[in-house]
Amino acid sequence: MAKISVSRAEAEALDAQDPLRKVRDRFDLEEGLIYLDGNSLGPPIKAALVRLQQTASVEWKRDLIKSWNDADWINLPRICGRKIASLIGVDSDSVIVCDSVSVNIFKLASALLKRKTGAIAYEQGEFPTDGYILQGLAQQTGAPITPLPADEPGALSENISVLVKSAVNYKTAAVVDIAAWERVASDHGVAIIWDLSHAAGIIDLSLKKDGARFAVGCGYKFLNGGPGAPGSIFAAHETIADLVHPLSGWMGHASPFDFADDYEPAQGIERFACGTPPILSMAALDAALDAYDGVSMNTVEKKSRALGDLFISLSTEFGLETVSPSVGQRRGGHISMPHPNGYAIMQALIAQGIIGDFRPPDLMRFGFSPLYIRYTDIWDAADALGTVLKNETWRDPAFTERKKVT
Amino acid sequence: MAKISVSRAEAEALDAQDPLRKVRDRFDLEEGLIYLDGNSLGPPIKAALVRLQQTASVEWKRDLIKSWNDADWINLPRICGRKIASLIGVDSDSVIVCDSVSVNIFKLASALLKRKTGAIAYEQGEFPTDGYILQGLAQQTGAPITPLPADEPGALSENISVLVKSAVNYKTAAVVDIAAWERVASDHGVAIIWDLSHAAGIIDLSLKKDGARFAVGCGYKFLNGGPGAPGSIFAAHETIADLVHPLSGWMGHASPFDFADDYEPAQGIERFACGTPPILSMAALDAALDAYDGVSMNTVEKKSRALGDLFISLSTEFGLETVSPSVGQRRGGHISMPHPNGYAIMQALIAQGIIGDFRPPDLMRFGFSPLYIRYTDIWDAADALGTVLKNETWRDPAFTERKKVT
Repeated sequence: MAKISVSRAEAEALDAQDPLRKVRDRFDLEEGLIYLDGNSLGPPIKAALVRLQQTASVEWKRDLIKSWNDADWINLPRICGRKIASLIGVDSDSVIVCDSVSVNIFKLASALLKRKTGAIAYEQGEFPTDGYILQGLAQQTGAPITPLPADEPGALSENISVLVKSAVNYKTAAVVDIAAWERVASDHGVAIIWDLSHAAGIIDLSLKKDGARFAVGCGYKFLNGGPGAPGSIFAAHETIADLVHPLSGWMGHASPFDFADDYEPAQGIERFACGTPPILSMAALDAALDAYDGVSMNTVEKKSRALGDLFISLSTEFGLETVSPSVGQRRGGHISMPHPNGYAIMQALIAQGIIGDFRPPDLMRFGFSPLYIRYTDIWDAADALGTVLKNETWRDPAFTERKKVT
Repeated sequence: MAKISVSRAEAEALDAQDPLRKVRDRFDLEEGLIYLDGNSLGPPIKAALVRLQQTASVEWKRDLIKSWNDADWINLPRICGRKIASLIGVDSDSVIVCDSVSVNIFKLASALLKRKTGAIAYEQGEFPTDGYILQGLAQQTGAPITPLPADEPGALSENISVLVKSAVNYKTAAVVDIAAWERVASDHGVAIIWDLSHAAGIIDLSLKKDGARFAVGCGYKFLNGGPGAPGSIFAAHETIADLVHPLSGWMGHASPFDFADDYEPAQGIERFACGTPPILSMAALDAALDAYDGVSMNTVEKKSRALGDLFISLSTEFGLETVSPSVGQRRGGHISMPHPNGYAIMQALIAQGIIGDFRPPDLMRFGFSPLYIRYTDIWDAADALGTVLKNETWRDPAFTERKKVT
């Protein structure tokens, strides 16, 4: 056992006082597993598995095509959107669930490019797909594209039309001051698309209050919607009438079931829907979002930071450092620790049921979803990590060999 | 009972000789239901429901993030693609499953526009989303857009860069002579994107032999992949190196897990993948495609036509006509019959467990998936239709009131 200063009994005491301790019961977690990868793929809540069964075996199998009406499949994108809206602090009818984060960035950035000439900007160190999509759009439209430093709102200028920026960085979990960026963006007429992939459901967002007008989000990380769950789009009411995007599929039409020849966008956020949505995946997401019923995002963020603080403190004792905001600072729901043997160390932890992930070149990443992670889980994981380091069990070739996906 | 000339005993005899009669057992069909809407949403096969349960309760719940490797989630788009390739007559590694039909049309049409200047063309009377997407692309790129008549390959010219065209029309089920169109297209340098939504899994396609190079397809109609199942893209090997599209998400990158800053498209058809795919929906599709194991598409098409011929013949006896290719002609898996009270008539049939659908302005649409529809089902459905017409039971207000989705 690695020597650490906080006792397990102290961690147990923290669990006993945790206002979210009952929320864990909503999840269907494997006995003995410490799952620190909810920032990459959240686990199912019990109700999501039941719902999926219902959607497949009753709505699809028994009621078939009638379920578009009778099970309200047709409204699932809006229903899920309302639930996400309440987690990110925006009007309930200004979010729709559809497609993937990548496709949604393309839609929003295309629409915003039309409003103003100027460069497309993306943040350095951003999750790659954000930059890839913008590169694709730039190549297609001939718009200039420019990288921007992550931490300098001052780099914004009149020459930029649209910037895509993560609210929480996927590697470091650094949290952006959205209001501060929006103030500068507003001065220069820059539209910022906030990528909430690592932020929604884990930090206490107030996008409307902060002046944010556009965002995309991911359903399968902290929102626990299931592998590859659909993404979402937020656009503030006052912006929508101007937002014309080229992925004008029939589900975004004002009257899809008129089968009219010409495209006429829906009045509201529905115009960002495109093709027929994957209902099985979307039903699971819809149910998953109920994990937040009665839960305050303020409490979620507070606990998430406390869990992260504890893990950082404990890990410091055996020489690990973090590239994430340190103890006491605002931070997303995960922390990243560089180590030259990070890949193998993570594999060694995974082999004993402590699941995190690895991001090149050398980052071990641990996610702490406060809905189901306990302080004792953090203690046990840190203890195991210390032991792997001390005994160098990661040197086993079973751990050093690379797999397809990490 | 309506008076019809083929006896039910004769229909029973046809069922007894049907080479596909055992395939019906693969499906999980409701007792007493005659489901004639597999052209809109196919029913589940038993194995798909089992697979979904496995994907949710074992792969997601138990194995969580590890399933990207251990359950091969990462390869599902290719695995499904191979199965679809065998149904449409193309090389096994030239199809990938991803996104929706709408998004996939956008990707392919964008890529093809880059290869040649010229107008985007779409077929008159096409399924609306195809036209909508092309209108969006035209508006975005400034490319001219032009409608083309459905039945005149001669309308193709040097001035057209790309045409999107359904292999089977969604209203009439008319089947296009793909080889004939491709010969003319080849003379004029036109790229045709075949929309296989109402063709794959129901007619015997030989796209490669017919000279087709590009196609998109739908997973949830005759392929029975589940509501909103992902779509697919086919591009012939020799074309791929030139195909650059703007939806350049990380799953289409040559090395997605390198998290490189710059987009580099995958060598093969994988470059058409974009964001993280909806695994629950895709797993159901993967299992569903096994309904075709050991089934010849020639047999499927032959039975589909025989079922349609029977329904048309029987319906003629009580005065209905069809806008679909008539008895003896090549036809997709559905038929459409105009009637001024078509909506209410269809509702009256649905109320007694005979499920078809309605398409404005006046078309009753009946789909005949040969994998599970029997000759006796056709007989019983036609008999019920005749009775509804004779007794005018459709006049009930419960049937005339319109629902959201039909």
